[in-house]
Amino acid sequence: MDNFNFHNPTKILFGKGKIADISKEIPKQSKVLVTFGGGSIKKNGVYDQVKDALSGYSWYSFGGIEPNPRYETLMKAVEKIREENFDYLLAVGGGSVIDGTKFIAAAVNYEGDDPWQIIKSRAKFSDALPFGSVLTLPATGSEMNAGAVVTHGATQEKLPFGNPQLYPKFSVLDPTVTATLPEKQAANGVVDAFVHVIEQYMNYDNGYRLQQYFAESILKTLIEKGPAYYKDPSDYESAANIMWCSTMALNGLIGAGVPQDWSTHMIGHELTAFHEIDHARTLAIVLPGTWKVMREQKKERLVQYAENVWDIRQGSEEEKIEQAVEKTEQFFHALGIKTRLSDYNVGNDTVGKIVERMSQRNWKLGESGLVTPDKVKLILEARA
Amino acid sequence: MDNFNFHNPTKILFGKGKIADISKEIPKQSKVLVTFGGGSIKKNGVYDQVKDALSGYSWYSFGGIEPNPRYETLMKAVEKIREENFDYLLAVGGGSVIDGTKFIAAAVNYEGDDPWQIIKSRAKFSDALPFGSVLTLPATGSEMNAGAVVTHGATQEKLPFGNPQLYPKFSVLDPTVTATLPEKQAANGVVDAFVHVIEQYMNYDNGYRLQQYFAESILKTLIEKGPAYYKDPSDYESAANIMWCSTMALNGLIGAGVPQDWSTHMIGHELTAFHEIDHARTLAIVLPGTWKVMREQKKERLVQYAENVWDIRQGSEEEKIEQAVEKTEQFFHALGIKTRLSDYNVGNDTVGKIVERMSQRNWKLGESGLVTPDKVKLILEARA
Repeated sequence: MDNFNFHNPTKILFGKGKIADISKEIPKQSKVLVTFGGGSIKKNGVYDQVKDALSGYSWYSFGGIEPNPRYETLMKAVEKIREENFDYLLAVGGGSVIDGTKFIAAAVNYEGDDPWQIIKSRAKFSDALPFGSVLTLPATGSEMNAGAVVTHGATQEKLPFGNPQLYPKFSVLDPTVTATLPEKQAANGVVDAFVHVIEQYMNYDNGYRLQQYFAESILKTLIEKGPAYYKDPSDYESAANIMWCSTMALNGLIGAGVPQDWSTHMIGHELTAFHEIDHARTLAIVLPGTWKVMREQKKERLVQYAENVWDIRQGSEEEKIEQAVEKTEQFFHALGIKTRLSDYNVGNDTVGKIVERMSQRNWKLGESGLVTPDKVKLILEARA
Repeated sequence: MDNFNFHNPTKILFGKGKIADISKEIPKQSKVLVTFGGGSIKKNGVYDQVKDALSGYSWYSFGGIEPNPRYETLMKAVEKIREENFDYLLAVGGGSVIDGTKFIAAAVNYEGDDPWQIIKSRAKFSDALPFGSVLTLPATGSEMNAGAVVTHGATQEKLPFGNPQLYPKFSVLDPTVTATLPEKQAANGVVDAFVHVIEQYMNYDNGYRLQQYFAESILKTLIEKGPAYYKDPSDYESAANIMWCSTMALNGLIGAGVPQDWSTHMIGHELTAFHEIDHARTLAIVLPGTWKVMREQKKERLVQYAENVWDIRQGSEEEKIEQAVEKTEQFFHALGIKTRLSDYNVGNDTVGKIVERMSQRNWKLGESGLVTPDKVKLILEARA
């Protein structure tokens, strides 16, 4: 059993109408920059609620942060902050806006010439700006963790980074904000959270039973509430459970002290890179392949997953696993998500390119480093 | 579904040898007062580990905090701190030592004449001293929450209080420190954590499915690992799971937004008051009575408990509940804990006194205020 530290200082304000409470969290004398994305918050009423809540503050807004937030865009916010001395950030959006805001918070007081080095070379920074968030799309968990992914447009790099200074001071989780979410985005969020849990759960056993059961709790809730939420994201009970699940899926709780896989994510990123398939959809494609090829290593946990998450009690271990994999794919399908490469017109040529790139990088993925390029080939071929 | 805030800033250092890391958490210039209880930490090596970790600090120790920490004792520590300007506290012990240290932290800078009013009248205080903890007895969850219970010797009051300033800055959870725990204390800790979860779980449904499943996760882990831990608290895997369970049982996670009962605790406190029965044992006595008398109100969740926690699939709803109650009592018995009033020589006279006192106070306990004194009478009579 590995030792671990667990420390998550983000304050969560959960429920209908909670956007109004941000004024209790942001110091009154702050000069606030509100960051957001493409403008959907101006249509669904969230922007107006934020505006009302910030009444009395000196504040300004910065829109246009992309779905995969770009360094170049974020640096424009950094310049604006430096020029006008904003001292508090409020991210209003999904994972991309919150991720981008984390980079902005880190870069503002960075003293080096090239803030990209914060990400690329883990360059040290101090005095990150404090920030809060209003979550509009449950999926990535960024609202309660200290990590982010940012893309450098000029160099075509998409890289993750993280720092304990980058926990949001607070995050508002109001499930009513998802009411007008396009069903595709709702579905993507559920699958993203689901696979976040799987990456921290479907591994060898190192003795932390509670973390396993917590992970199963999130999976069961996503399975129970996901389809209703997909059909109608204005259903409060479903939306509330999905929102809390997606936060808990990646806030450090279920991953404390346990081995983690993340190979499905790494392979999925390549599919996005080559074909611009939505992140969550790449995960739904790859996951059954990972389970097929790595079945021997993951056997014990796959059986536990079949029994505890899907309540499969009959049959041999192999049969239980088969049923669980099938039910998982059916769950993705019930969310309108297709799970084969052919559904996205991805052929063998792409598989070849991905395997080649992974070979060049000499990647050994997974909780035990066993997902080598030859395994990646088998995983993707199984998903043709 | 009720709105909620969730904010738990305590940093957890979990695992073998983690006591050495407290020097990374306490600022180097601090003048530290180490608080502890009856001296068992000097026998089991914990005190020596703390001493090593504090090498280079200016520190002093204050022992003698009682199992039910007393205001009078704690005020001696407060005087010492005021005289000698300690500015950081380190509680080394179980829930009582940590609870007592919370009061000390609050009282030091309190400006009123009578610090007891912090508890009794919720008198405001500011600038609580920062403190950390080294947990030696998993049970109360005090290591990761901001609440405490303190007893006033002169007035015979035992009262709870809490304040967001009173989260420990950090808590060390090293499962090896329980290796020499007397089996009675190990058993008490498991039952205490178990009933903490039950109070937040065995209620009417308000839609938060994830919190229910998280609660079931803790219950299942306690049931699986509790007996082995009781027999041998030096078994690391059991001890680690029990320790993390007892922290998670009362750190705000499973109670976020859900109705809470706490009537079993309130009735149990009276048994301790009249007969000095260990707190956890009073809970084990009362709980099956609460379930018997309040069965109609709790029926839906009791069936869920039977199915999800005890895996009972056969029989009518009533039969499932009967089996689950029986299995729960058997679980307490497997921990060497007796569950009848007669086992502790408590008779009808005490029941009468408790009911009378509750009537005088006009108490209406439980998640819906339905546990009135007449119900308390039935609950205790069912446990004769």
